[in-house]
Amino acid sequence: MDNNADAGNERYAALDLGSNSFHLLLAEFRDQRMVRLHTDRAMVRLAEGLDSERNLAPDVAERALEALRRFAPVIRGLPADNVRIVGTNTLRIASTQADGFLEAAEAILGAPIEIISGIEEARLIYSGVMAAAEGPPRLRCVVDIGGGSTEFVRGVESPRQLQSVNVGCVAFNRRFFDSGKIDLGKRNSFTRARRAAQAELQELRHMADEALVIGASGTIKSVARVLNDGELLPIHRRDLDKLADRVANCKTVAAIDLPHLEPQRRPVFAAGLAILHGIFRELDIEVMHVSPFAIREGIVHDLAGRAHGGDRRADTISNLMEKGEIDRNQAKRVANTALQFFGQLNPHSVTSQRRMLRWAADLHEIGLALSHSNFRKLGAFMIEHADMAGFSRSEQENLAYLVRNQRGDIKAVQEHYGFHPNNDLLLCLRLACIVHRDHMDRPIDGLALSADGPGYRLEIPSDWLYDNPAIEDLLELEVECWAEKNIKLTLGSS
Amino acid sequence: MDNNADAGNERYAALDLGSNSFHLLLAEFRDQRMVRLHTDRAMVRLAEGLDSERNLAPDVAERALEALRRFAPVIRGLPADNVRIVGTNTLRIASTQADGFLEAAEAILGAPIEIISGIEEARLIYSGVMAAAEGPPRLRCVVDIGGGSTEFVRGVESPRQLQSVNVGCVAFNRRFFDSGKIDLGKRNSFTRARRAAQAELQELRHMADEALVIGASGTIKSVARVLNDGELLPIHRRDLDKLADRVANCKTVAAIDLPHLEPQRRPVFAAGLAILHGIFRELDIEVMHVSPFAIREGIVHDLAGRAHGGDRRADTISNLMEKGEIDRNQAKRVANTALQFFGQLNPHSVTSQRRMLRWAADLHEIGLALSHSNFRKLGAFMIEHADMAGFSRSEQENLAYLVRNQRGDIKAVQEHYGFHPNNDLLLCLRLACIVHRDHMDRPIDGLALSADGPGYRLEIPSDWLYDNPAIEDLLELEVECWAEKNIKLTLGSS
Repeated sequence: MDNNADAGNERYAALDLGSNSFHLLLAEFRDQRMVRLHTDRAMVRLAEGLDSERNLAPDVAERALEALRRFAPVIRGLPADNVRIVGTNTLRIASTQADGFLEAAEAILGAPIEIISGIEEARLIYSGVMAAAEGPPRLRCVVDIGGGSTEFVRGVESPRQLQSVNVGCVAFNRRFFDSGKIDLGKRNSFTRARRAAQAELQELRHMADEALVIGASGTIKSVARVLNDGELLPIHRRDLDKLADRVANCKTVAAIDLPHLEPQRRPVFAAGLAILHGIFRELDIEVMHVSPFAIREGIVHDLAGRAHGGDRRADTISNLMEKGEIDRNQAKRVANTALQFFGQLNPHSVTSQRRMLRWAADLHEIGLALSHSNFRKLGAFMIEHADMAGFSRSEQENLAYLVRNQRGDIKAVQEHYGFHPNNDLLLCLRLACIVHRDHMDRPIDGLALSADGPGYRLEIPSDWLYDNPAIEDLLELEVECWAEKNIKLTLGSS
Repeated sequence: MDNNADAGNERYAALDLGSNSFHLLLAEFRDQRMVRLHTDRAMVRLAEGLDSERNLAPDVAERALEALRRFAPVIRGLPADNVRIVGTNTLRIASTQADGFLEAAEAILGAPIEIISGIEEARLIYSGVMAAAEGPPRLRCVVDIGGGSTEFVRGVESPRQLQSVNVGCVAFNRRFFDSGKIDLGKRNSFTRARRAAQAELQELRHMADEALVIGASGTIKSVARVLNDGELLPIHRRDLDKLADRVANCKTVAAIDLPHLEPQRRPVFAAGLAILHGIFRELDIEVMHVSPFAIREGIVHDLAGRAHGGDRRADTISNLMEKGEIDRNQAKRVANTALQFFGQLNPHSVTSQRRMLRWAADLHEIGLALSHSNFRKLGAFMIEHADMAGFSRSEQENLAYLVRNQRGDIKAVQEHYGFHPNNDLLLCLRLACIVHRDHMDRPIDGLALSADGPGYRLEIPSDWLYDNPAIEDLLELEVECWAEKNIKLTLGSS
């Protein structure tokens, strides 16, 4: 496959590192329509590799890396902005010991892996399913049963309600079918798994009301094929009830013998079916349609959207500014000044860094509506833990770090996979916060920030300082803050 | 003094454990007017006792306890609801090593000490100053220079803007006048202290605009007396400039010789004056009036308000529910059911516990507007760090604990001064969350929760279970959660 073709800029790759399987999609946009050029899949069952301390077993990690070596050539041929690799439930919950695996994976793929939240996962799934949806707009409920979690999204053109619950086919297989037995007489593993799923789904009971229900993901597709002679046709309640009965009455998982069931799906089929049956019962579903598209198609649509000015993340930031009752004038002042400093420091910076700086400035006062004295700590925590559509976990961490350290002591942090604090960004944000500490416009024309060996130098015209004496004191304190980190900031006056 | 008089119910005591001094006030309300019966003061200079690790020096702790022994008889005579003892800046920032001091103090006083935030401090000061304010309502800016922090409040009848900055006379004395010298030739300690204060005050520049400026606290009163021949008359800018000049030109702190300056105020006078001068300059103040009332009077007014149905905390909760976009119907459902369970468990419970349970239920979904998957963690953090007018720090901690553990594993926590998780409250909240997990009304008539040795027993009519099968599963999981904490919850069916 030649990814360096002329049309290369319009080619996108999505790789989804799921708890059950890894999926690769290479697609091209032609007249705004997505054309799938290449797909690949590896049933890695990553979730099986997590022990009770959430460390990843070396053999499972190796199995996963092996799959990535196969996928790598497709990804390596594309520009960085056209590739997105996401990790979901298992990588979300894995211990930091898995950082080693992530670094090895990144080295193979030549691109970063973003760990995304369950809610972001749900949003991408919805966007993927919608890409294949036909007919007039109507209320839809999309269901995706994964290896570690199950996502539900309700919406029309865009998602209105997103939910992610910790119910997944690999996790449930381990919890209920570890012995390989199903019908144990009084205690039936299948029934227990179905009831446990229902208990978790209680508060989602209304998600499917009056909506067209659409399933995505391997579990649902495999059930649809078993019930419909190998075709991806809708799943009907009465057929599902019968299938559930049949599986519940098998003595063991190995005894399940069904037409059109792929051998590699079999180990987690009973668990996945129990969950699906629980969903039908708890959400009172009669029929579920099956989408050929899922998260990968959503990712590709998202990438194409970013390239054409429709970055979902900008809406998310605007939304948070609204909820946090942020003073937009102050956000704008600080953003513009910070970007001006950053432009002086890095005339050839990449868009993604400038974007990050602007968003940090947009959100820097987010905790202020709740607390005056703790707002930086609170704001950083909000950014780190909020559902931020379009953002990966490490993007949220990096934003939170900037907001947390917008002034005062610069906290020491533990760097880890995907999180590498950037001093240039931080310094520019902090200087901008100082310049506009009094919430006033104040042009910085004449000031010049530059790199100075391993440190920084800020040149300030003396008449500017004369006009702004209080800022001089703050800048002197700023020099001390960086000195604590063994970074030299020199103030020059001309 | 006989606190057990007939009028005892209308007597209130406030004790303020400040960074510079401790103040006691015993007051009575006659026709809704506060009459001060007794005041006492001890210049303990608690802030001096904190070392670089924020541990409290034993000799300073002993000095403080000595003062409390003197105050104790006044407090011990009053009903618990009529006493409030608050700790401010120094106790706020002290390490947990100070818990020993707090416990000793509590044993002496026979009443708990509440650590309050700077913002809550500002609110109480405003309320105290307003109690003495005369004339028609107008815009006011109240300033209180403490030992560790300075509070600013702008408002008319009630506070509109509250700010607390880490600038205080004991802390500044240590930072700038530790050597006892003032005029060091090129580097003048007084000027440096004043400039450092101004740097911190930059963003408060507009707090005094068009407002009547009123000062409270010892530093301001002492300056007023020095300038006005011992009288608490207003401080004028030109007089203050002259006084500042005079002090800045003293060689040492010991050389300051001013009329009407109390000897015990002298050690921190230069630092306090530098801060006040910085405030006048940065906020561009021409004249500052001086209030005879301060935080103690505010506390007493607050206590009297609570006794007569005007609990500020109820407004705070309602406000947070608004900001957090909380579903009030669900909050009400959960609150009512939780209180019903709690009434079964503790027929003779105290109001403060029932109130805490209701507030926890009111706020239990507070993080949900920002995050679906992390909302409990996020909500608890918000409650712990928000400015919650009327609440002490430990009340916020206890509420945060309940919200954090409303379902799922019950996190192990470190108990400490003022924070002792209550299992009865937690169980009732959790059961109510289970009953209304699906956001539906569901009467619990017939269910009966009772203590069962060191554990609990929940009796459920079998027809109720039959109608609500999913809840049975959740209750079984609940039993497991408590078993993890070695607490036995027994489900009985009748």
